[in-house]
Amino acid sequence: MQKKYIIIVAGGKGIRMGSDVPKQFLILVNKPVLMHTLQVFYEYDSAMQIILCLPPDHFSYWKSLCIEYSFEIPHLLVEGGDTRFESVQNGLRFVDRDALVGIHDGVRPLVSRKTIYTCYEEALKQGNAIPCIEINDSVRMMNQGGNAVIDRQMIRIIQTPQVFQSNLVLESHFKHAGEGITDDAGVIEYFGHTVHLVEGNRENIKITSPEDLLIAQSIIQHRGLAEHF
Amino acid sequence: MQKKYIIIVAGGKGIRMGSDVPKQFLILVNKPVLMHTLQVFYEYDSAMQIILCLPPDHFSYWKSLCIEYSFEIPHLLVEGGDTRFESVQNGLRFVDRDALVGIHDGVRPLVSRKTIYTCYEEALKQGNAIPCIEINDSVRMMNQGGNAVIDRQMIRIIQTPQVFQSNLVLESHFKHAGEGITDDAGVIEYFGHTVHLVEGNRENIKITSPEDLLIAQSIIQHRGLAEHF
Repeated sequence: MQKKYIIIVAGGKGIRMGSDVPKQFLILVNKPVLMHTLQVFYEYDSAMQIILCLPPDHFSYWKSLCIEYSFEIPHLLVEGGDTRFESVQNGLRFVDRDALVGIHDGVRPLVSRKTIYTCYEEALKQGNAIPCIEINDSVRMMNQGGNAVIDRQMIRIIQTPQVFQSNLVLESHFKHAGEGITDDAGVIEYFGHTVHLVEGNRENIKITSPEDLLIAQSIIQHRGLAEHF
Repeated sequence: MQKKYIIIVAGGKGIRMGSDVPKQFLILVNKPVLMHTLQVFYEYDSAMQIILCLPPDHFSYWKSLCIEYSFEIPHLLVEGGDTRFESVQNGLRFVDRDALVGIHDGVRPLVSRKTIYTCYEEALKQGNAIPCIEINDSVRMMNQGGNAVIDRQMIRIIQTPQVFQSNLVLESHFKHAGEGITDDAGVIEYFGHTVHLVEGNRENIKITSPEDLLIAQSIIQHRGLAEHF
């Protein structure tokens, strides 16, 4: 069986939150957002190597939080870079060849175990697996003259973890400068590899606003109740 | 000042909810979803004529709910059709020329007053106004060979109320058969009119799953608290 890694990237300064605390450290129900994120992967597979990329000036705060919340999930703490892409590169320096590596946003604590399972299983077979969801609303695309309706069934919203055979991503991510890249799938696509989409989970939102935090709280508190509706 | 109408369409049978009760009748905090929706428009402008399109076999249930919840917001109850488009057509039969008419999904109770204001104001100036939001995540588009990344800043997710000068929509909606149409902006676009996008509000979700109902509940219960984060 191939070794599994998950690189969790949390570089956000939380500017959009209107808060001094970077959003990955905000308290979600009973502990910081980021601890929920690490926990999902640990509970899915405790043998998975967790690599956490944080800005160096957040290290001591993170360590004090771990003590305060008795957080003992093993992980490797790695210095993040100036951009998300550089942080991913730094994390990849600790990843072996011939393994599977996932790259995940620290502020997505609501990824389901099913999504994690699907991504690693499909990456094993296909070389990569990128979770996505469909859009329920009408969609329009901006153009020079204004905008035009497009078929919403053609559009997918992309999530994380984006999982790859490590050889693939180790080769791609150190050749690319990271410019214009919004996610890791974009890097392998740049080098001509086919991006393999799989089904994500709708609750797997990125927490980027106070409203997102409230929504995440509601989802966690009601998990398991939904089927009674 | 032009007369203002809002056509609220609620034809859903609630199949996706895994529930016998159509989703517009599910209880959100303290009353059915649909009552919240009517209330937002009434509180925005009590002189606005509310036209509610419901399947005829829901009429008696709706009336009993209105008694149970002492719901007294004035509205005209109109028979919905087999499709959303036909329901809108039925509602439009009660709309005068030279007025402003909005068309809104009954299961979007979280539209903000600001969105309503913007839509009616801009429709007055531009002929129509369609609320939309941007996407925070990466986006991909399916194609024959698989999929490719597209610039997320080019994409808008479309909401309601979609507001029009009534002459425009009265002329368009009775010429069109409604095939392949997912919203009312698509109808006027079909006849060559420019669709004018304005800013919606992110919480203005369409309630189509049990999770959506929980999210809506959380947003309502925490409204006004968000700025303290």
